Amino acid sequence: MDIEEFRRRGKEMVDLMCNYYTTVHERPVRSQVEPGYLRPLLPDAAPAEGESFDDILSDVQSHILPGITHWQSPSFFAYFSANSSPPGLLGEMLSSALNTIGFSWITSPASTELETIVLDWLGKLLGLPHAFLAVGPDGKLGRGGGVIQSTASEATLVALLAARSRAMAGRPPEDALRLVAYSSDQAHSCMQKACMISGTRHMRQLRARADRAWALDPEDLQAAVEADVAAGLIPFYLVATFGTTSSCAVDPLRPLGELAARHGMWMHVDAAYAGVAAILPEQRAGLDGLELAHSFDTNCHKWLLVNFDCSCLWVRDAEPLKEALSLTPHFLRAKGNALDYKDWQVPLGRRFRALKLWFVLRTYGRAGLQAYLRHHLALAATVEARVRADARFELAAPPRFALVCFRLKGASCEQNAALIESVNQTGRAFLSHTELGSQYTLRFAISGAQTQACHVDAAWQLVADKASELLGAQHL
Amino acid sequence: MDIEEFRRRGKEMVDLMCNYYTTVHERPVRSQVEPGYLRPLLPDAAPAEGESFDDILSDVQSHILPGITHWQSPSFFAYFSANSSPPGLLGEMLSSALNTIGFSWITSPASTELETIVLDWLGKLLGLPHAFLAVGPDGKLGRGGGVIQSTASEATLVALLAARSRAMAGRPPEDALRLVAYSSDQAHSCMQKACMISGTRHMRQLRARADRAWALDPEDLQAAVEADVAAGLIPFYLVATFGTTSSCAVDPLRPLGELAARHGMWMHVDAAYAGVAAILPEQRAGLDGLELAHSFDTNCHKWLLVNFDCSCLWVRDAEPLKEALSLTPHFLRAKGNALDYKDWQVPLGRRFRALKLWFVLRTYGRAGLQAYLRHHLALAATVEARVRADARFELAAPPRFALVCFRLKGASCEQNAALIESVNQTGRAFLSHTELGSQYTLRFAISGAQTQACHVDAAWQLVADKASELLGAQHL
Repeated sequence: MDIEEFRRRGKEMVDLMCNYYTTVHERPVRSQVEPGYLRPLLPDAAPAEGESFDDILSDVQSHILPGITHWQSPSFFAYFSANSSPPGLLGEMLSSALNTIGFSWITSPASTELETIVLDWLGKLLGLPHAFLAVGPDGKLGRGGGVIQSTASEATLVALLAARSRAMAGRPPEDALRLVAYSSDQAHSCMQKACMISGTRHMRQLRARADRAWALDPEDLQAAVEADVAAGLIPFYLVATFGTTSSCAVDPLRPLGELAARHGMWMHVDAAYAGVAAILPEQRAGLDGLELAHSFDTNCHKWLLVNFDCSCLWVRDAEPLKEALSLTPHFLRAKGNALDYKDWQVPLGRRFRALKLWFVLRTYGRAGLQAYLRHHLALAATVEARVRADARFELAAPPRFALVCFRLKGASCEQNAALIESVNQTGRAFLSHTELGSQYTLRFAISGAQTQACHVDAAWQLVADKASELLGAQHL
Repeated sequence: MDIEEFRRRGKEMVDLMCNYYTTVHERPVRSQVEPGYLRPLLPDAAPAEGESFDDILSDVQSHILPGITHWQSPSFFAYFSANSSPPGLLGEMLSSALNTIGFSWITSPASTELETIVLDWLGKLLGLPHAFLAVGPDGKLGRGGGVIQSTASEATLVALLAARSRAMAGRPPEDALRLVAYSSDQAHSCMQKACMISGTRHMRQLRARADRAWALDPEDLQAAVEADVAAGLIPFYLVATFGTTSSCAVDPLRPLGELAARHGMWMHVDAAYAGVAAILPEQRAGLDGLELAHSFDTNCHKWLLVNFDCSCLWVRDAEPLKEALSLTPHFLRAKGNALDYKDWQVPLGRRFRALKLWFVLRTYGRAGLQAYLRHHLALAATVEARVRADARFELAAPPRFALVCFRLKGASCEQNAALIESVNQTGRAFLSHTELGSQYTLRFAISGAQTQACHVDAAWQLVADKASELLGAQHL
């Protein structure tokens, strides 16, 4: 395939992409295939000679699309969304074409420098403390700054590694065995995975309680830390969550940060989903105390119209991160803006992901992004109102951001599970579930790029109808 | 920006991409900007209101492209290449549009299943032992299979974690402190980074010697292992390299694998760059003994026309990987094809990267890929011939695959460094350097997707001319 064929095929692909977005609402949201569906449909080896792109596209239509769960459907309300947008797509296209591997500054200066600048832009939009920005209000380079990670999982891991490097400075290697990390049991599973990967032996997942709206209680943390210190352990890392996966609970950053400071712990704020809501000044209350954190991460690929992946991590001081991840001796490390982002992440190679973020921030502007976020918050409020208005249901947690957790009141786990499965089986909406205080809980997460009131209304009506069928059938 | 504007802008972007590829040879290969060039050119905050895409594209042309080091230039001979291709780009476009997050099977069955199938296709093209494939010759699912990682760094890390999980089975936690990992000092730096991240205390980077063409000597390894065992340590992980970064050295897999087996070590084969060469049967000699390895990784984004990132990892037995990375209890893990790739990698979320690999394998077919690889091997042979024909130069290592390492004979480090800098400063070619046995070495790596004989000839002539200038100027 030469460049001229690519020109033709590329434009056909753009049409296919547009066609996909204008018709995705007609497809079953959750794929309806069975495990193993694809292998019998494909040859068991690559072809000996090249095939035509028409044949490939034909297989995409017939074999691949039925196996897609449509994250871009306006009726996708499961997990948290994965936003796609026109400028996000255009940024991906350009980044793929340049296909740079920006592991160090010289391997593509624009890739590194745009990332630093655009993360300062986004940090300002979010109202982050100045210390998290690369360039402070005085125009000078500080010790902090932002970097794009693949996912919040990777951010939680590298923050742990930075915390370990900071905690171990001047200590004998055996002390690594006594390090202990903390979070609530509502923190994302990536916290546990980060401990497994890094070989962190001690991890406390403190139980969050319903009466604190599933947030981590600083008194519980304090008791755990004191017990560990008394037992000879070394507290080093605390993950506080701003918008947990299950219920969007917000851990109280100020008291947690004060406690972390007293015990020399690194506090990482995992705001994977909800962090971008801080573009709205009225959503920032839960970030009070953020200046006490050492790192903060939010995913622009969830709710900010940037195609996956684009997880934005800021650190107040990049030195412990480099200490943990750089193989370059301290005295040889790049100074000033000529930073090498390979020293801020797990992999060596990295794509030019700042382009798509830059395109999105410029295309929508602050006002456009604010309107977008408020649109989803308003839609979530309508779902909350309907749960409250229907006596068969109860809220399972205080609705936060654009997530509403609910369940059939007084019903069993099995009944709630049957309800969600009957909804999802229709293909007309896709919700996911969680567990809160051992209770099966349905999640209605509204942050799809194409989601409008009609989609939310239809999905709620579907839930209500299926509840009627279920409750009727079971003679409750 | 709505869908109809995206249709127009997307087609403009395709034209821009085509224009980039047809003119990239005219641009300076290595960016000529100075650190900090970009910040003064951009506003210090995101715009309050959205901007037009014309303004964004204008800034791309004037501010971004000068800061790009052009990995797609046909005169890029530095590091190892990062191939882009029309079907690779089309796959990226479709994957971005679907924007699925395939962490588990149900979140997009096609994403998981196509990945398993296409890695079987590629594994067969490479002649991998059956045990590495998901489905064996009997049509039954085995214990092994392939997965796409972001980079070879991530593959080396997860293989280490699998090795640790295997080695620690049934041992007390303290034994983790006694684990020891091995490689040659020519192994990629990601090996050291993997040890740092995982908290692996003991790592031996055994010195490779010129008289073994920079390969790891099994006797040296045996001596190191025996000394460590005698000291009470536990050998658990060996990284053998098929095509080292510096000189494309090939470690002897069979004796290393036998040694690994005797000591219960996991052997990972890092074939990041050169592994894809195994599509050519005549390039497989160095893979003799691969059936003794536990994992094998090669990057389709380096030399196989798949846009970054696409690092393909195969394991003979996936269970230790899941043991290391899954949070799901063993008895709940998905069976058979319904695998959840989140349990095979560091992050949770994952893009649908199998699409672009599938598009590339089908568009070129085995014959097309073989012709492509042989084209580069033939070009590299012409460079080798020129080094041999010019008495001022010497080969610094036996040329392997499409890499030629050379230097000015009898010249100092400074002179060789001056030579490469004078070449790179012209912007007409970009070579990188390494160190072999403390000697400064120039690398001429030929695997650019657009690279033809004329580009190689011109770059060599440039090297020769600059050598004349330098040697003349210095009255050698």
